[in-house]
Amino acid sequence: MAAPESTVNLKSKLDNVQALWSPRVVAEMNGLHFKVVKLQGDFVWHCHEDTDETFLVLKGEMVVEFRDREVTLREGELFVVPKGVEHITRAQQECHALIIEPAGVINTGEAGSVLTAPLDEWI
Amino acid sequence: MAAPESTVNLKSKLDNVQALWSPRVVAEMNGLHFKVVKLQGDFVWHCHEDTDETFLVLKGEMVVEFRDREVTLREGELFVVPKGVEHITRAQQECHALIIEPAGVINTGEAGSVLTAPLDEWI
Repeated sequence: MAAPESTVNLKSKLDNVQALWSPRVVAEMNGLHFKVVKLQGDFVWHCHEDTDETFLVLKGEMVVEFRDREVTLREGELFVVPKGVEHITRAQQECHALIIEPAGVINTGEAGSVLTAPLDEWI
Repeated sequence: MAAPESTVNLKSKLDNVQALWSPRVVAEMNGLHFKVVKLQGDFVWHCHEDTDETFLVLKGEMVVEFRDREVTLREGELFVVPKGVEHITRAQQECHALIIEPAGVINTGEAGSVLTAPLDEWI
């Protein structure tokens, strides 16, 4: 079998990310991507019709707002946004998170935005 | 759409796990399970023929040993064990980790052991 890849230090990876709202892939399993991201301010309302999306907060605090309620995610907290549910993410102060979703998922879903990030960019 | 579930605080979940080597499911996305686990000592050599397996260390330090080398994983570090690669995990002192793998995966793979944990047990 192929030799396993090396470990991924999430903090070190985040040290090399400057842009906000620009998820960078750090690992892959079964076609699923693990992405680190820095968030601050408001994202855009969007939806992923075909996949759930998981957030794990590594530093700071973020909000996932839905049309009928919102949830606050703090460091060490994980949340799964079910597929097909419209949502917007925001963070008052810079927040670092791990996003888990299949390869090929566009960060703004079908919304399209100046915040649409390059697809599947590794760091 | 169904109302999204609530957030999962990984530390709180781990506070309720007593047994070592007994992964408990805390969340699910796209049929994939997120499990918290406490490790100490040596696990057993095993293999998952059909799936990669991801470890993210939340506290402490663990080792993933392969037949030809080993990797050490520290807090905040992530590692993907490729499918079909025989491995054993160990931790000198108690280590807390998040495991990500599809629902229905047996922790000891095809090895069978007294360490085989109940399947897909949520906490």
